[in-house]
Amino acid sequence: MADPATVRTDARRHHDPQVRGFASDNYAGAHPEILAAIALANGGHQVAYGEDDYTGHLQRVMHSHFGPTAEAFPVFNGTGANVVALQALTDRWGAVICAESAHINVDEGGAPERMGGLKLLTVPTPDGKLTPELIDRQAYGWDDEHRAMPQVVSITQNTELGTVYTPDEIRAICDHAHERGMKVHLDGARIANAAASLDVPMRTFTNTVGVDVLSFGGTKNGALFGEAVVVLNPDAVRAMKHLRKLSMQLASKMRFVSVQLEALLAKDLWLRNARHANAMAQRLAEGVRAIDGVEILYPVQANAVFARLPHAVSERLQERFRFYFWDETAGDVRWMCSFDTREDDVDAFLQALKEEMAR
Amino acid sequence: MADPATVRTDARRHHDPQVRGFASDNYAGAHPEILAAIALANGGHQVAYGEDDYTGHLQRVMHSHFGPTAEAFPVFNGTGANVVALQALTDRWGAVICAESAHINVDEGGAPERMGGLKLLTVPTPDGKLTPELIDRQAYGWDDEHRAMPQVVSITQNTELGTVYTPDEIRAICDHAHERGMKVHLDGARIANAAASLDVPMRTFTNTVGVDVLSFGGTKNGALFGEAVVVLNPDAVRAMKHLRKLSMQLASKMRFVSVQLEALLAKDLWLRNARHANAMAQRLAEGVRAIDGVEILYPVQANAVFARLPHAVSERLQERFRFYFWDETAGDVRWMCSFDTREDDVDAFLQALKEEMAR
Amino acid sequence: MADPATVRTDARRHHDPQVRGFASDNYAGAHPEILAAIALANGGHQVAYGEDDYTGHLQRVMHSHFGPTAEAFPVFNGTGANVVALQALTDRWGAVICAESAHINVDEGGAPERMGGLKLLTVPTPDGKLTPELIDRQAYGWDDEHRAMPQVVSITQNTELGTVYTPDEIRAICDHAHERGMKVHLDGARIANAAASLDVPMRTFTNTVGVDVLSFGGTKNGALFGEAVVVLNPDAVRAMKHLRKLSMQLASKMRFVSVQLEALLAKDLWLRNARHANAMAQRLAEGVRAIDGVEILYPVQANAVFARLPHAVSERLQERFRFYFWDETAGDVRWMCSFDTREDDVDAFLQALKEEMAR
Amino acid sequence: MADPATVRTDARRHHDPQVRGFASDNYAGAHPEILAAIALANGGHQVAYGEDDYTGHLQRVMHSHFGPTAEAFPVFNGTGANVVALQALTDRWGAVICAESAHINVDEGGAPERMGGLKLLTVPTPDGKLTPELIDRQAYGWDDEHRAMPQVVSITQNTELGTVYTPDEIRAICDHAHERGMKVHLDGARIANAAASLDVPMRTFTNTVGVDVLSFGGTKNGALFGEAVVVLNPDAVRAMKHLRKLSMQLASKMRFVSVQLEALLAKDLWLRNARHANAMAQRLAEGVRAIDGVEILYPVQANAVFARLPHAVSERLQERFRFYFWDETAGDVRWMCSFDTREDDVDAFLQALKEEMAR
Repeated sequence: MADPATVRTDARRHHDPQVRGFASDNYAGAHPEILAAIALANGGHQVAYGEDDYTGHLQRVMHSHFGPTAEAFPVFNGTGANVVALQALTDRWGAVICAESAHINVDEGGAPERMGGLKLLTVPTPDGKLTPELIDRQAYGWDDEHRAMPQVVSITQNTELGTVYTPDEIRAICDHAHERGMKVHLDGARIANAAASLDVPMRTFTNTVGVDVLSFGGTKNGALFGEAVVVLNPDAVRAMKHLRKLSMQLASKMRFVSVQLEALLAKDLWLRNARHANAMAQRLAEGVRAIDGVEILYPVQANAVFARLPHAVSERLQERFRFYFWDETAGDVRWMCSFDTREDDVDAFLQALKEEMAR
Repeated sequence: MADPATVRTDARRHHDPQVRGFASDNYAGAHPEILAAIALANGGHQVAYGEDDYTGHLQRVMHSHFGPTAEAFPVFNGTGANVVALQALTDRWGAVICAESAHINVDEGGAPERMGGLKLLTVPTPDGKLTPELIDRQAYGWDDEHRAMPQVVSITQNTELGTVYTPDEIRAICDHAHERGMKVHLDGARIANAAASLDVPMRTFTNTVGVDVLSFGGTKNGALFGEAVVVLNPDAVRAMKHLRKLSMQLASKMRFVSVQLEALLAKDLWLRNARHANAMAQRLAEGVRAIDGVEILYPVQANAVFARLPHAVSERLQERFRFYFWDETAGDVRWMCSFDTREDDVDAFLQALKEEMAR
Repeated sequence: MADPATVRTDARRHHDPQVRGFASDNYAGAHPEILAAIALANGGHQVAYGEDDYTGHLQRVMHSHFGPTAEAFPVFNGTGANVVALQALTDRWGAVICAESAHINVDEGGAPERMGGLKLLTVPTPDGKLTPELIDRQAYGWDDEHRAMPQVVSITQNTELGTVYTPDEIRAICDHAHERGMKVHLDGARIANAAASLDVPMRTFTNTVGVDVLSFGGTKNGALFGEAVVVLNPDAVRAMKHLRKLSMQLASKMRFVSVQLEALLAKDLWLRNARHANAMAQRLAEGVRAIDGVEILYPVQANAVFARLPHAVSERLQERFRFYFWDETAGDVRWMCSFDTREDDVDAFLQALKEEMAR
Repeated sequence: MADPATVRTDARRHHDPQVRGFASDNYAGAHPEILAAIALANGGHQVAYGEDDYTGHLQRVMHSHFGPTAEAFPVFNGTGANVVALQALTDRWGAVICAESAHINVDEGGAPERMGGLKLLTVPTPDGKLTPELIDRQAYGWDDEHRAMPQVVSITQNTELGTVYTPDEIRAICDHAHERGMKVHLDGARIANAAASLDVPMRTFTNTVGVDVLSFGGTKNGALFGEAVVVLNPDAVRAMKHLRKLSMQLASKMRFVSVQLEALLAKDLWLRNARHANAMAQRLAEGVRAIDGVEILYPVQANAVFARLPHAVSERLQERFRFYFWDETAGDVRWMCSFDTREDDVDAFLQALKEEMAR
């Protein structure tokens, strides 16, 4: 087929590709290798809805990471992955124990409840991480029909607060959940960053320690779009294909989702991207620690830096670089690095932060 | 940024890009101009979740087609577009009148009911097209709480059977619905093919004649993925952004959906693709009509040919070209053409059909 | 406790207890033996939510009718019974095959879809009765995720059109469904009338022939309120208690539902009531057949008479006796008899019909 | 009709009507005046589904309590009332702010989420009572589609912890909510006890101070069964009839629900019952305060006493009187009084408590 780079298109460029900020790893575009992979998969006809050769091959790639029983179900986005996964792990009467700060609880517009018919049983945590003790605040009453039945523990790795569970911590959660007849879901929207941070293969903190189903995140790792529900324990789910379809997450031209995940996972693009983003966050954190009056809030273990600083400083800084308040009342902000953050970006941001703190 | 065509990727090609069939316009890949558009939109940071410059510009492109009040909400796929649109047009107690053959009724795994909480009130039709008279079989009982309240009429243009409503037919439906306090949704998964068939602008059979909300289909028209709910009558809906999010249809890197729609709609790619697919269907239909024993079932007005032929012939033919049975008991099959179907493909298929009919 | 008949109450009588019509068996009040049973169960404390002695005893009563594996779950009303039962018989991705005229499809305000997340796959029938052949119009595609998966066949006995399945007809349906991996639900809102009509025990056309779960109707049979989901095949369901609660059908003072069902079923009140209502329908049908110009539409096998007569006659007659049009366009009406219909009521109605036909 | 007290019934008495405990006001039966009212409403035919004369008259009774714009929609139970009310007050995308201890959050099996598609935004409270400040922990982000949109504040009066809001406290909540575009729902499962406690009419802390919709509780106040959604602000809701039906809460023989509410509310049965239950709780609390080692946990303002005492004592006491642990780990128990609790019951319970504490 034609070389996309030389093809005319009626679309025009509307943005400055040199502008980057610290708002979100979703603000970044796609890694060039992803676009190259898509071009490779284009042309000719392939069976729609997942019976294509790319989705077939993706299974083998997933096996290399998660072992031979893993099965990937590509979906469109993270909310979709989570809601499909949680439906698969629960009966109509099931509930999901999660941290109060979990993405499924605070950032999905109520999709788990409205689309999945799920009740979330939330627990406040100091750092976004559940523990067996914290789980026990909600893990009871399975026989009590007045209570939504806890059937799943859902954790996020790395967490929404940029912290990372150790494999042992996840093993303890899985053991605790399984002993009580519950299954474990891991929201891996940033699983690559966690693996890079721990410097272990992804399976070390997923199927090796007992996670049943995983939401694998491609978008924040450099894909155009695309995630996958990865079933690690086939006995934990049924009818995945039907759940994905009825949850409006079945891509017709699925080869283009699958080939992106292949591009990330076939060799080490996923890890290169994650390591780079993490390293940029470390560089940023180090620089911030050298600035008086700015407090770093959580251990910087992945690609996010949470900080507390004067509100007015943040507002001035936002005029120069995009980022979000996390808790506007407290003056807490979140600075995210991504696969395309450059050292220069970090340094310029630190310089700006110093200047604004000094005003 | 780097030229995608020259970028190394760890993904590999797993298919033969020269193989094409007649199974579905979803079996085709993406038009090269679409990939070029995506490359153009890549690089740098853009606000996620729809506040990017591409989604902003898309509104202007949509205005050129559907007038200044149209607003597009890009989503991932057709089922998502339909379920978001129908939720937006109904209250919790609302029901949707549609043809028994409608995609929302037979091909979406129950997503409208399960995810949208919608009741579908279906009507058998001879050719996939509703009429005011057919609508009246379900349009009653608005004050009767025992009955799900009809609030929307949903039509498909072109229909799932390859037939095309005239603008006057849609106007009659809209007038009829509006007089009864109902709104009109148009599932435009193949709206481009309908416009090409009628040789009129898309607005001529949508907002000009009273359609309130449209599911605009990009995927079957040559996009990688991507559709949009296009609100033509702003008074007919509320909280579209919230409905899209809670329905798991909010793309984080939305610029890449929007730029595809821009590539299709900015000039005439949408129309070139549709005209070509339709022309291939005409070529196919003409050839089929010359073959004794094969009956064409519906008027061939878009890019689909429905035919009845001996079951054994179809089975043999399927070993040479991919296509689907539509009604296996009756021996009915569907042959779809797409933007990348070539005259040679049609001719080879006709030759094969002749040979198999002669055996 | 005090004798209710002698207790003062601040409520007043607002109606004429001598007025009866032919609108619905729901227009009737409760049989006096039902009120006596409630008084008996009153006083003292009993565990709420179903752990009371009356609900315990009800199980034994149900065993006498449906065998030792039957388990009854009292609920409030018929819609609740059906939606709880159908949820219990399906997974999240399941669909229910039923007659187009089924109460669950046309008279429950979309509750099965909205509350149960169920897709109904409907089939037109000549007389409200499904057959294996009719079921097959929807029983296919279990592996096709684009289609809602048929998991249950739901039939109504007697049907909404006053017709009654023979035990053999139900056995054929059950065998057919079971062979295809589907379960069978029987909506028994008027199951007593069916048993009276067939002159067989209820089990003869339920568990004996393969029905898995039953909605047992008490209200139309003379109760104040109250139905029960009766699980005949315990392997067909799970978590019934939880489903009843989350479906808002768990009565706190359940003893008062259970004792009504006991009053009906302990001996023969259920049958006396049903036989009487059926006999009144026969008397009515015989009288109608003697009147020229009034056509009886379906076999009169239970307590309903459906008739076609001039619209203006029906309207005049409605000024004298309450009843409903069934299909106003066609001039079809429904006349229902109930446990408290008297021969005089029927005769007076026939006299009025004669008079109005003669005008 | 026949006098129920003299009517034979096939049901038998299975319980000892002299046994009472402190487990729940749902363990009590119905007040004799309720049964008398039901008998009065029996006989003859009345239009089903709410068009009867008793439901009509109930509106006038409700007007006497809540003013001329109030409209009552009788339903079966409290969960049903709450879920219907909250659906009526929200759009598909709406969320409900409530106390973490709210019945809708912890005791309804997830019905609000599963049946209503509602997201609950919970706030921990010291005593079960929300305040404007506590509400603000969740009242933000209306324009943020990633967040479920707060549209309703739901409070319980009296609360699940036996505490009672003053009218001024509720006014402050309503003002706060309304200023932010939210509506206010009051779960009045024990509203009569609250009114008795405050010694004011019910309207003083409902429509007078801005409550939009009320779940009126009859069952715990002495009814056989039956609650009502009472719409105080007609502008706050739509399609109540449809929502009640599709939520499976529409009673066919509604006259029997309505006449119970009439019996309670026409004069002062509601208040007599509530005052008595509250007085018994006061008697119990006074006695408990005199016993060393038993701590009363919350102000005793209605018919509940929450206490902390040694776990082993509670277990021994439970062998003599039924009651529930509230928090088994902490040793917290709940003792409920009801309309039929007698001074002797309280005194015997206190004696037993003393004895068990002394062992």
